[in-house]
Amino acid sequence: MLGRVNHIALVVPDLEVAAARYAGTLNARVTAPSSLPEHGVRVVFVELENTKIELLEPVGEGSPIQAFLDKNPSGGMHHICYEVADILAARDALVSNGARVLGDGNPKTGAHGKPVLFLHPKDFFGTLIELEQV
Amino acid sequence: MLGRVNHIALVVPDLEVAAARYAGTLNARVTAPSSLPEHGVRVVFVELENTKIELLEPVGEGSPIQAFLDKNPSGGMHHICYEVADILAARDALVSNGARVLGDGNPKTGAHGKPVLFLHPKDFFGTLIELEQV
Repeated sequence: MLGRVNHIALVVPDLEVAAARYAGTLNARVTAPSSLPEHGVRVVFVELENTKIELLEPVGEGSPIQAFLDKNPSGGMHHICYEVADILAARDALVSNGARVLGDGNPKTGAHGKPVLFLHPKDFFGTLIELEQV
Repeated sequence: MLGRVNHIALVVPDLEVAAARYAGTLNARVTAPSSLPEHGVRVVFVELENTKIELLEPVGEGSPIQAFLDKNPSGGMHHICYEVADILAARDALVSNGARVLGDGNPKTGAHGKPVLFLHPKDFFGTLIELEQV
């Protein structure tokens, strides 16, 4: 079921500072920031040879990552996004195996315009898993 | 400086349960467990198309991941390992940019038999970074 690791998402308190640190200190290729107000985030990608790091900063009230930043004011590792070929088939197989899908159980349109869903971290040992249909 | 993401490391409270969940519920390819008592861990790899997930369980007293598991009893995301071509050059560039290397600042032989070092998570927004020379 699991395909490539599409990205690893890290929440940061200040997107510009974090992007500069990855570009400067770590000498990595970093995209320009983009705002996704409908997702409550601003985002920068660190583009690596085989996958991406997604740096996320909360935007607006009710940002889905604000609570994480409140608990982890310095930032931290937030989730891993795996690619799947068929998100509904993946969801049905997961649910039949007892895994819980967050929200109403239906895929949403994610930050990259593709169907995504999130799995309950309690079912995967404290790691939040995103699935994205590619 | 940063090459491929070599692996993403997740600490789990029970390696067999976690390996079975990734192999079963997530239908991923999972290696047999191996013990690395000199590193204080048992480890299983989830082999994906473009990178690996390293599932880690502490072994013995003084395991470097026991404190993490005490703080996060369900487990959680622990570190990201990036490949570098020359670990001493990478270290020197990082230190000259003000980043802190954990321990005595010299590479150790990591769990894969290659030179590794870890960077202070406070310098990278709460994310623990491992560098591995490949």
